[in-house]
Amino acid sequence: MTSKLHYLTNVRIVLCQTSHPGNIGATARAMKTMGLSQLYLVAPKKFPDKEADAMACNAIDVLETARVCTTLQEALTGCAFAIGLTARKRDLSHEMFSARQASIQAIEVAAAQPIALVFGTEMSGLSNAELDLCQLLAFIPADPGSSSLNLAAAVQVMSYEVRMALLGGATEKINDAAPLAANEDVEGFYQHLEETLVKIGFLNADTPGRLMQRVRRIYARARLEKEEVNILRGILKHTQHPRPREKKTSED
Amino acid sequence: MTSKLHYLTNVRIVLCQTSHPGNIGATARAMKTMGLSQLYLVAPKKFPDKEADAMACNAIDVLETARVCTTLQEALTGCAFAIGLTARKRDLSHEMFSARQASIQAIEVAAAQPIALVFGTEMSGLSNAELDLCQLLAFIPADPGSSSLNLAAAVQVMSYEVRMALLGGATEKINDAAPLAANEDVEGFYQHLEETLVKIGFLNADTPGRLMQRVRRIYARARLEKEEVNILRGILKHTQHPRPREKKTSED
Repeated sequence: MTSKLHYLTNVRIVLCQTSHPGNIGATARAMKTMGLSQLYLVAPKKFPDKEADAMACNAIDVLETARVCTTLQEALTGCAFAIGLTARKRDLSHEMFSARQASIQAIEVAAAQPIALVFGTEMSGLSNAELDLCQLLAFIPADPGSSSLNLAAAVQVMSYEVRMALLGGATEKINDAAPLAANEDVEGFYQHLEETLVKIGFLNADTPGRLMQRVRRIYARARLEKEEVNILRGILKHTQHPRPREKKTSED
Repeated sequence: MTSKLHYLTNVRIVLCQTSHPGNIGATARAMKTMGLSQLYLVAPKKFPDKEADAMACNAIDVLETARVCTTLQEALTGCAFAIGLTARKRDLSHEMFSARQASIQAIEVAAAQPIALVFGTEMSGLSNAELDLCQLLAFIPADPGSSSLNLAAAVQVMSYEVRMALLGGATEKINDAAPLAANEDVEGFYQHLEETLVKIGFLNADTPGRLMQRVRRIYARARLEKEEVNILRGILKHTQHPRPREKKTSED
């Protein structure tokens, strides 16, 4: 029985706008105990920082190789699947799964492609704009009266669940799935789609409302493959520039 | 749906000779997020302490009701079952289980009687004498190269597992799902889509190939809701009859 633990190199932990460097260090430690090493920091308040180093203990190497990004989108470049952690229900909800279920889905993708677990700020979690970049939401089933885990504690639980999913042989149903589209390709499709909807008059650029969010949700659930993004963009191209074919044989 | 969560009042967290008061506070917070409240401290180095309070956040009440004991035996008084947490294999004859397995056993007892999860010092864990007071050993399946979880992080994982065991794995999806579209509505959409693709010249009606199958697969995975079918058909209608909006005029 060959271990699937090497899939862990395909699992990124992404921290968005972390306020306290100590939490970054504690996150690095939590990750390393579970065999994770890919840390991405989106616009951290203070990093690098002595306090981060102190809390990291023997996981200094994780901090040293951490990638600092200016946007979440940048941190998700090359990722096929992003899971946003959230403590509360969101109204325009993505699919929402428990940490355990989400981890099982995560490793199925991580068998072949990079995935990301995305954590928001200590105070307010992930913004809606950040959640929109995720394909799935996950929650840790905490006590409703006190659901706010410390950031590094939440990373610890998620990293643990991902590791457990790999140890549990939960990857059995990995078949030869086609490669999923990378985040930037899917975002490119959304942009193309939005532009097209404006052009055909379905979307008013001045009062877009929540239409794009609703539409994103559909495709987020579908988890688009690379090839499918090409098809959908082909449709959009033809929508903008119709090229009706001549029918050679029939009338009507 | 009110489950077995009240068993949690029968679950004690016992910390032995903790060195850093911050870890006691972080433990209180970790416990409270999972609905635990019974904290026992065996000969803590410093307690109460400002740092413990600071790390406890909104779990100050757990600290305030914590019981300070001089020996582990005292802390286990009234307990029917004690599980000792250990990072490394012990050569003793204790049964040793993963955190998950141990938690399942724990809640079976906790249904009727108090049980304890026992954690050792930050530096060296539980002594053999302390382990002898436990009926079972549990380990968190960490990376062998870096198996030392922070104390509060270990409490977080164990508390989480106990809660999950009570929730029965928490496998249910929590979305209050919007009604899915009926089969005939989805088929109506596919038909509308196909006709549109022909009209814009993306699909050749004479040699359709497998395009529609591929596209169906995308939406099948998404499992379209009723309302989403309406949105998608709205887009198709505008694709066939574009109505670019003038900047100032009103729409129909």
